Amino acid sequence: MKLATYTADGRTQTGIVVGDSIVATGIDGTMIDLIRDWDRHKPALEAKATAGGSVPLASVKLEAPIQRPGKIWAIGLNYADHIAESKMETPQRQVWFTKAQTSVNGPFDDIEIARGTMTNDYEVELVAIVGKGGKHVAAADAPAALFGYCVGNDVTERLWQHAGPQWSLGKSFDTHAPMGPWIVTADEVADPHALDLRCFVNGEKRQESNTCHLVFDIWQQVEHLSTAMTLEPGDCIFTGTPGGVGAAMDPRQFLKAGDVVRCEIDGLGHIEATMIAEG
Amino acid sequence: MKLATYTADGRTQTGIVVGDSIVATGIDGTMIDLIRDWDRHKPALEAKATAGGSVPLASVKLEAPIQRPGKIWAIGLNYADHIAESKMETPQRQVWFTKAQTSVNGPFDDIEIARGTMTNDYEVELVAIVGKGGKHVAAADAPAALFGYCVGNDVTERLWQHAGPQWSLGKSFDTHAPMGPWIVTADEVADPHALDLRCFVNGEKRQESNTCHLVFDIWQQVEHLSTAMTLEPGDCIFTGTPGGVGAAMDPRQFLKAGDVVRCEIDGLGHIEATMIAEG
Repeated sequence: MKLATYTADGRTQTGIVVGDSIVATGIDGTMIDLIRDWDRHKPALEAKATAGGSVPLASVKLEAPIQRPGKIWAIGLNYADHIAESKMETPQRQVWFTKAQTSVNGPFDDIEIARGTMTNDYEVELVAIVGKGGKHVAAADAPAALFGYCVGNDVTERLWQHAGPQWSLGKSFDTHAPMGPWIVTADEVADPHALDLRCFVNGEKRQESNTCHLVFDIWQQVEHLSTAMTLEPGDCIFTGTPGGVGAAMDPRQFLKAGDVVRCEIDGLGHIEATMIAEG
Repeated sequence: MKLATYTADGRTQTGIVVGDSIVATGIDGTMIDLIRDWDRHKPALEAKATAGGSVPLASVKLEAPIQRPGKIWAIGLNYADHIAESKMETPQRQVWFTKAQTSVNGPFDDIEIARGTMTNDYEVELVAIVGKGGKHVAAADAPAALFGYCVGNDVTERLWQHAGPQWSLGKSFDTHAPMGPWIVTADEVADPHALDLRCFVNGEKRQESNTCHLVFDIWQQVEHLSTAMTLEPGDCIFTGTPGGVGAAMDPRQFLKAGDVVRCEIDGLGHIEATMIAEG
């Protein structure tokens, strides 16, 4: 099932994407509420999906599927080619930073270049959405702890990322965590470690890889994070970006106002944003 | 005003602490909802505080004032003596990391030593609670953007903090962000940069300083964070810890099951926890 958060007629709600249409779930609350009670809601939603809908997807505004995740964790240095271009060593242990919940952005909303910043960069990533979650989830049990997957762009302000030893602030600017276009539930993703992903800037392909190249796979990521903390419904895990970021190009290429950034993952769809200067 | 979140008769709600009593605010929702609508609620709550209450504070369970902050940011290396004992340089730029929202713990609740960890440490800190917040808040406007203050313990798993380059995961274990015992509103804190703070382990004083020694003061912290992102009601800012942490003692002293950790700040009260092994 493809589950979206969308706004139509001034109301934001959750819906099921069926082909080119969207069907309201009719469930009060946010996507996190829906995920928390998924087992209860699932049969009725499957029936709605089968019946289909009459609201054209093109007539609504898609929002980030999870607008206010409780936690957003993102793993660094998790594709060999990105590690090489970053001139870093392959980490022996997973390296994690965070993105603020206020950095979440809709899948087709503009991304802001904040006042005074000049080193904004893209990072296409597969995002895993936590379902049941839990604490001390073994890698073997991780698939059952996840709800689904979507496309993410781990937009990064490189100067703020590297001006000190800690990356999270440079990863947390407003609008710098676009996600979407919807969540594809885990049962419809045959193998999350076999997905092609790509990023384009103004139509030029900048990143292209496959999630089979993750250094630490998604199940290891869930195990590691949940050793420390309880993963909860709707928590978002950015699983790493492959090589090709602007900061590693020669000469370096950062995003400027007017640039169009498109991130896509086979089977999950695409997100696309125009860069704008902060007002 | 002193504002608490507390549980009595199975119900968790917000209340006003008046001497040894607590008065229910009668406002639906969480402390974040109350902060968001503070201007509207304030007159009625002042009247309730004046009228006083009859529920003994000792008869209720105090919870973390903000149970699910949207964001928890914490500044590192922000007291000269802690920088020296950490054998680090005074940063030219503020160094920020995060604590997960799931790490929040009640002011008198047990703190867990997670399975397999052996290097749990304390860090007493003044916590600033965001009120109106905003983006691009100048230092001069920061006081008006904050709602109040409380005591926090930035409990840290040192091995996880330093096993890689990023600290946030080692700062985000469940139960590792105790806060409380309540929020003292900013109008009742004459000068947040003139507060004595102390931490005791089993009655032995380990940390003692005054917030006048902050390297980057609270107003600078608000300005820096809000350059990147929108600060929102209820966001929590851990403003740094002074020298005296267990990891810097000779020999090093980490917290073990049964230890009692008390953190106190003059005028704000104290929080106290027993360390327990995770079940």
